[in-house]
Amino acid sequence: MLTILNQTGQQQKLNKYKEYGSKNVLKPMDSEQLREYGHRMVDFIADYYKTIETFPVRSQPGYLHNLLPDSAPDHPETLEQVLDDVKVKILPGVTHWQSPSFFAYYPSNSSVAGFLGEMLSTGLNVIGFSWVASPAATELEIIVLDWLAKLLNLPEQFLSKGKGGGVIQGSASEAILVVMIAARDKVLRTAGKNALGKLVVYSSDQTHSALQKACQIAGIHPENWRVLKADTSTNYALRPELLQEAVSRDLEAGLIPFFLCGNVGTTSSTAVDPLAALGKIAKVDTSFSNEMWFHVDAAYAGNACICPEYRQYIDGVETADSFNMNAYKGLLTNFDCSLLWVKDQYAVTEAFSANPEYLKNKASEANLVVDYKDWQIALSRRFRSLKLWMVLRLYGAETLKSYIRNHIKLAKVFEQLVSQDPNFEVITPRIFSLVCFRIVPIDNDEKKCNSRNLELLEAVNSSGKLFISHTALSGKMVLRFSIGAPLTEQKHVKEAWKVIQEEASYLLGK
Amino acid sequence: MLTILNQTGQQQKLNKYKEYGSKNVLKPMDSEQLREYGHRMVDFIADYYKTIETFPVRSQPGYLHNLLPDSAPDHPETLEQVLDDVKVKILPGVTHWQSPSFFAYYPSNSSVAGFLGEMLSTGLNVIGFSWVASPAATELEIIVLDWLAKLLNLPEQFLSKGKGGGVIQGSASEAILVVMIAARDKVLRTAGKNALGKLVVYSSDQTHSALQKACQIAGIHPENWRVLKADTSTNYALRPELLQEAVSRDLEAGLIPFFLCGNVGTTSSTAVDPLAALGKIAKVDTSFSNEMWFHVDAAYAGNACICPEYRQYIDGVETADSFNMNAYKGLLTNFDCSLLWVKDQYAVTEAFSANPEYLKNKASEANLVVDYKDWQIALSRRFRSLKLWMVLRLYGAETLKSYIRNHIKLAKVFEQLVSQDPNFEVITPRIFSLVCFRIVPIDNDEKKCNSRNLELLEAVNSSGKLFISHTALSGKMVLRFSIGAPLTEQKHVKEAWKVIQEEASYLLGK
Repeated sequence: MLTILNQTGQQQKLNKYKEYGSKNVLKPMDSEQLREYGHRMVDFIADYYKTIETFPVRSQPGYLHNLLPDSAPDHPETLEQVLDDVKVKILPGVTHWQSPSFFAYYPSNSSVAGFLGEMLSTGLNVIGFSWVASPAATELEIIVLDWLAKLLNLPEQFLSKGKGGGVIQGSASEAILVVMIAARDKVLRTAGKNALGKLVVYSSDQTHSALQKACQIAGIHPENWRVLKADTSTNYALRPELLQEAVSRDLEAGLIPFFLCGNVGTTSSTAVDPLAALGKIAKVDTSFSNEMWFHVDAAYAGNACICPEYRQYIDGVETADSFNMNAYKGLLTNFDCSLLWVKDQYAVTEAFSANPEYLKNKASEANLVVDYKDWQIALSRRFRSLKLWMVLRLYGAETLKSYIRNHIKLAKVFEQLVSQDPNFEVITPRIFSLVCFRIVPIDNDEKKCNSRNLELLEAVNSSGKLFISHTALSGKMVLRFSIGAPLTEQKHVKEAWKVIQEEASYLLGK
Repeated sequence: MLTILNQTGQQQKLNKYKEYGSKNVLKPMDSEQLREYGHRMVDFIADYYKTIETFPVRSQPGYLHNLLPDSAPDHPETLEQVLDDVKVKILPGVTHWQSPSFFAYYPSNSSVAGFLGEMLSTGLNVIGFSWVASPAATELEIIVLDWLAKLLNLPEQFLSKGKGGGVIQGSASEAILVVMIAARDKVLRTAGKNALGKLVVYSSDQTHSALQKACQIAGIHPENWRVLKADTSTNYALRPELLQEAVSRDLEAGLIPFFLCGNVGTTSSTAVDPLAALGKIAKVDTSFSNEMWFHVDAAYAGNACICPEYRQYIDGVETADSFNMNAYKGLLTNFDCSLLWVKDQYAVTEAFSANPEYLKNKASEANLVVDYKDWQIALSRRFRSLKLWMVLRLYGAETLKSYIRNHIKLAKVFEQLVSQDPNFEVITPRIFSLVCFRIVPIDNDEKKCNSRNLELLEAVNSSGKLFISHTALSGKMVLRFSIGAPLTEQKHVKEAWKVIQEEASYLLGK
């Protein structure tokens, strides 16, 4: 009897192995394998979210090259082997941006709808460089960018029906580079290409480093980057007088002011520049009868501006030539998804279009369609509008507004907790869902205070219980508590504050 | 009895509605909703692949804005509604790059492993700009790029252990822009920034339009773009003598040769430039004791070079400064995934680094780690190495080689079919899996022949049965039959040829 059982067991094992063996030959593409493996991956990822709070938020140092072989395998491994390695070797090295206790930088939203949209886009895997390469990819992008423009109540000129329109870029850095090149080439068509050394860029010193990178790539001479000082007197917003002075000086010196970057929600402290006043200066004719290109970087705070009560922060956007916000920073759309609107699409396409024979087609040549390849740096592009469209439909605008308001409400809670503790102070008034704070200096010793705050940063992050980041404001080291992960609730904010307080007590007691 | 049954039915319906109603409130993120909805999306995408052959490969013209509302919904819609719209409104506007009968452009591979990798990356949704922002994202990328470099048998200097290393860019356009800016700034540091107008770029006229776009963005003066003519005498490869003459002329004129782009597998016809001979010219000291930066664009054909029998086509790559191939064009990795290797990472990071306070961290400042933000245009970046890693592990290198060989074998089949038909001719010898062909001219009437081939192109693509593209070679309109979709089998190639023959017969009979 035992023998029989054993034989049967053996046979079953063999059958299973056989079945497994044949099933296990993964074809390049096969709908049933995609189904089977896809379901397993969905479960793996759902389990990740289920247990996400058990991971240290910031991971531990470099180790991976000791754990992985130094060349690719010649023959297939199984999904089990790979997923085991993900668990054991990859996840410990992941900083968990989706953890409810991730409060660093600005958020990278991942949502159910965004995830589904990204899956669908990956499944279709089209490359929509030209309209003809996948018309729905281009058309849906136009439509969804119009939807968002309306939610933001952007001026009509940014909508697709006239000369304007929106486009999805990978990130705010690409957006800013694209419009800077468009602006540069527009000026140089009049001023001559040897005038490059005369072009001047303006922004506050709170502007994201993406502007500096764009200047480097565009070849703007470093001595022509006007980085105007902003300070506490305006809560780090750019003062229009400073801009006016700089522009006047440059005009007198025979230089060409050509690009102004205004900020709505700076990276350090969510400062908001006075757009209307800045735009007025940008739009005065210079000697080259060339107005400056006015770009508004609202990468983070632009998300909040879909709520009527926050819309005021982009008042004056009607004077801008371009406007940018990152939907992945607050609108539940998985990274990457950076929305750029321009008033004059032809300024962009004139700078970026290239039409080799192998891309020519009837629709493009008849000028009947938009070819987004001419609105960006790269030729090829993914079908990114799908995820934004699915987010908008599966949640609806009102849900998105509540989502943003909730984060701002949580930030208020944190702000209050900080204010109530005499060891701490809030630096700059909180506007959106970022709180800038620090341990207060003792005996006015700012230097020691700075190092103490950096020590606190390290201590808090090393705990693995939360992850925050820092910045510098007027020479002060400041801690940034940025709320925006989809899973964050009030309890996470309160727990985080408790850890910060405990680590601070320990530091201050030393 | 009937009443009771009805009541029970009603009650069940109500219960179901209630349950559905509450379940249907989609949270921003929730592991169980992600699981449930994720499974449904996997099934939707698997069903798409199951029925992919029923769709016309090239879609029909612009219509979407008539089908979708002109603003976003305020309140949530259901996944059913959205998926119904995908079926009815989106899919008809999709050009099906994953169809086995997609033979246009170059392929965009989608595989089970690539899909899973992209899912995982979307699930984790980290932004790995700096090492600290998610160490595993940076480290896995370094490792996997080394794996690929070894498969390609790239010279040691491209590996990460020394000054070199690899990085994933979105596309070949970004890769070429990144190295051009690095090369430009390296020269200008010596020659002075006002020397920009003297910088000269060299390539054959078969080079991808990405080079032109990079020149535009980098501000290289158009009169300094040396577009050297290639013709049938070399099967559209760049002749080293032509390059040598141009460089000598420019040096005599006091210009600065600074960038050479060599091609392995051009977009029009897979021409292969003689890298070793070109590199020798690029590496002779010019008057500025500045060697040219030699970039090799192997976006498409680089994939085949993992097979030992095709490795010869990148012989001479040891003279190059940078090398690029797109894994999504042949290595079963979903778009986007463009691999760039450089010998001198510092040339790149010097041009692209920006280190604002809010990104500073101990590991970066101690120079212990790679921060990929300084290797690319944007700051933010997705965890793209996951999909490449999963592809390499779940298929293994040998499977990838067989996969590529199979497409080349199929291209040989197609090439033979064309050769056997007296109405057609193969233009330029086939090397990889692209066949360039056309209807032969009648009475040497090239003009009529050109328009006839364009008519054939339109007729074939309008049929919806396959999708091919075209190019121009020495003034001849040429049809491109590019094999590389994961689902393509010999029967699809033969069916496609039948359609082409039928449409041609009809055209020739008119």
